[in-house]
Amino acid sequence: MASPARKPHVVIIGGGFGGLEAAKKLGNEPVQVTLIDRTNYHLFQPLLYEVATAALSPADIAAPIRGVLTKYTNMEVMLAEVQGINVAAKTVSTGDQQIAYDYLIVATGARHSYFGNDQWETLAPGLKSLEDAVEIRRRLLLAFEYAERITDEAARNAAMTFAIIGGGPTGVEMAGAIAEIARYTLAKDFHHIDPSHARVILIESNERVLSAFPEKLSASAKKQLEDLGVEVRTGVRASNLTTEGLEVNGEFIPCRVKIWAAGNAASGLGKMLGAPVDRAGRVMVNPDLTIPDYPEVQVIGDLAHFAHQKGEPLPGVSPVAMQQGRHAARNILWMLEGRKPQRFWYWDKGSMATIGRNKAVADLNIVHFSGRLAWLAWLFVHIIFLVGFRNRVAVLLQWAWAYFTFNKGARLITRNFQAEARPAS
Amino acid sequence: MASPARKPHVVIIGGGFGGLEAAKKLGNEPVQVTLIDRTNYHLFQPLLYEVATAALSPADIAAPIRGVLTKYTNMEVMLAEVQGINVAAKTVSTGDQQIAYDYLIVATGARHSYFGNDQWETLAPGLKSLEDAVEIRRRLLLAFEYAERITDEAARNAAMTFAIIGGGPTGVEMAGAIAEIARYTLAKDFHHIDPSHARVILIESNERVLSAFPEKLSASAKKQLEDLGVEVRTGVRASNLTTEGLEVNGEFIPCRVKIWAAGNAASGLGKMLGAPVDRAGRVMVNPDLTIPDYPEVQVIGDLAHFAHQKGEPLPGVSPVAMQQGRHAARNILWMLEGRKPQRFWYWDKGSMATIGRNKAVADLNIVHFSGRLAWLAWLFVHIIFLVGFRNRVAVLLQWAWAYFTFNKGARLITRNFQAEARPAS
Repeated sequence: MASPARKPHVVIIGGGFGGLEAAKKLGNEPVQVTLIDRTNYHLFQPLLYEVATAALSPADIAAPIRGVLTKYTNMEVMLAEVQGINVAAKTVSTGDQQIAYDYLIVATGARHSYFGNDQWETLAPGLKSLEDAVEIRRRLLLAFEYAERITDEAARNAAMTFAIIGGGPTGVEMAGAIAEIARYTLAKDFHHIDPSHARVILIESNERVLSAFPEKLSASAKKQLEDLGVEVRTGVRASNLTTEGLEVNGEFIPCRVKIWAAGNAASGLGKMLGAPVDRAGRVMVNPDLTIPDYPEVQVIGDLAHFAHQKGEPLPGVSPVAMQQGRHAARNILWMLEGRKPQRFWYWDKGSMATIGRNKAVADLNIVHFSGRLAWLAWLFVHIIFLVGFRNRVAVLLQWAWAYFTFNKGARLITRNFQAEARPAS
Repeated sequence: MASPARKPHVVIIGGGFGGLEAAKKLGNEPVQVTLIDRTNYHLFQPLLYEVATAALSPADIAAPIRGVLTKYTNMEVMLAEVQGINVAAKTVSTGDQQIAYDYLIVATGARHSYFGNDQWETLAPGLKSLEDAVEIRRRLLLAFEYAERITDEAARNAAMTFAIIGGGPTGVEMAGAIAEIARYTLAKDFHHIDPSHARVILIESNERVLSAFPEKLSASAKKQLEDLGVEVRTGVRASNLTTEGLEVNGEFIPCRVKIWAAGNAASGLGKMLGAPVDRAGRVMVNPDLTIPDYPEVQVIGDLAHFAHQKGEPLPGVSPVAMQQGRHAARNILWMLEGRKPQRFWYWDKGSMATIGRNKAVADLNIVHFSGRLAWLAWLFVHIIFLVGFRNRVAVLLQWAWAYFTFNKGARLITRNFQAEARPAS
């Protein structure tokens, strides 16, 4: 496929869990790799809710991609936004540049989906990027400041009501973390309000939260949330979002801060591949992760719809993305040896969700548990996997500090940068 | 002054070094205190350049004001921007609220001054706020990314040229830190450029850098900067700033990133007091920190012009602000006892400026030194004074990590939030 004079060129789009694992696996192999991302960092998304709730700083959960890959000599990192993919010409376009590839791995993930109600995006931001997290942190902290300042009781109650729409892991983690902040961190900081009276409502349209978990763990998660004072409303939908509040089952709830954790839509790049996509925009990949007719193109992670044995696609979680990233890299090395790409098998080690201090649920397939043990397991796994030694130590230290003092250090309300100019160029 | 039924009300505007010290000194005294700030955090400004150069995160050098003052029961913190002061009526206006005071302390500090060239502000941002620091960090890191991507040699050189205008402590610290990042942190991260060839130019209109320091230390600072590869140009002025570059002494230097560290202008609130102000907008205070005719109003910190024995006003540094803050608080307690406010005396313990790893200068009045010893002294003092235990440990850890690895952890290019909505209200 490649001329003998040069190494085959692998282009990876996206430096998330899938793309980064693929790149590492190809490090110092007989290929030339270009990883393209529109940010300069790899984001540890599972801890994004900790930034949104002021426990961690953006830099604690983000590692510069260049730094992570600096030890591989066959690797180039490009800060750019891919505008188009031409699978027939085997090129990727970044607007000002055309990049030719021999092999392509597309790993650009997903954003939120508002199910046709895009006007809700500014009313109820989702949580996918560092910018999202900083914006949510700002709204949370400003709500308490606003409540402290005003005297109108109804407006004050609306400011101290927080609605989280979607009871998957992100929604559960956000609800628990907001309840904790209000009950412990901010409890004594105000004079005119008692933050521990804040109302946190978790809204889930399924009959139970964490519906991907076993029923017993869903029930335990609900109980643990309620112990923190969270109102858990299942089997109901949020509708009619406005700046003043939202409707749940016909009841209007005055509520200043709303957070969206309900749905995902795959990155738009998936549609440029010409392969079939599912309703959420995910690319229907072959069992070996390639797309029909183009074995040199693979799609992985949240952008891929991989038909699982049970009929359901694999979930959009980091273990799937990482395993697919390594597999896609291996496929390329096999193809270079003249072999065929192989079928991908997902090794499901289980899943966990944290709710708060000493509160979590863990489903390790053969064993389910909840409470403190699950929380410690969650902590252990997340520290182990955090990219980069420095981040690991910094996060550990801040968690230890928060655990013993109930204090959260990153309670900064930073401003919009609207008035600021873009860099000279 | 106050009715016997209620405690006298002290309003402090500004939660910087001066305002915060005044508030602490009044903690649990027989007064009611309201501290008003437009941000929710106290900023440790002397380390702002470390955020701008990706060594520390915003939260490492900022402490929520509510958290710092939470232990005092006579204190209220208000997140608001003061719009006006009426010294005759003894009220402060925040737009939607009028707040009456018995005693007022104004401590709103300074912003940059572009000496009549306000159009330079977007071309060469200054370094006063967290937003400034994050913007400068973004420009620095993007410049290297841009240089890596383009092939035009002239444009690449311009992207890798960094001009710092102003050779006071901030300018010297920025120049040293940028040179270090280029030489050590980023050295191996790129393929098409060698960041260690970056050109860092420090421009100072005085005949020497750090002109407030003894001549010997200025010379040492220059030497230490040059050891890091910084071009130090003294006795010359920068002019004609454009996106493409700037002029120094008639010579045009193509240069993408420019940073302003040359001048300060006092906060506009000073002019609302009716007292005389100097050319930089600082309020000419009486020797006891009060303003003429209004002994209940005191001005402290960077906003105050305090005539020193030498004729020069006291410099705009944190020790002055902190000592004045404590003195202003004491004045109020004295006045409550029917005594007169007392004259303020500044106890000058000396000053320091850091240049880089093992590089600094220290002027402790009776003894001057530079190099590693000065650097260690600088490190020690800054850690001791960082507000809040958690920040201290986090900063120490990150410095230790950076020292041993030459790595800097906070190399994030975060986006403008232009597209994002303001919070629902």
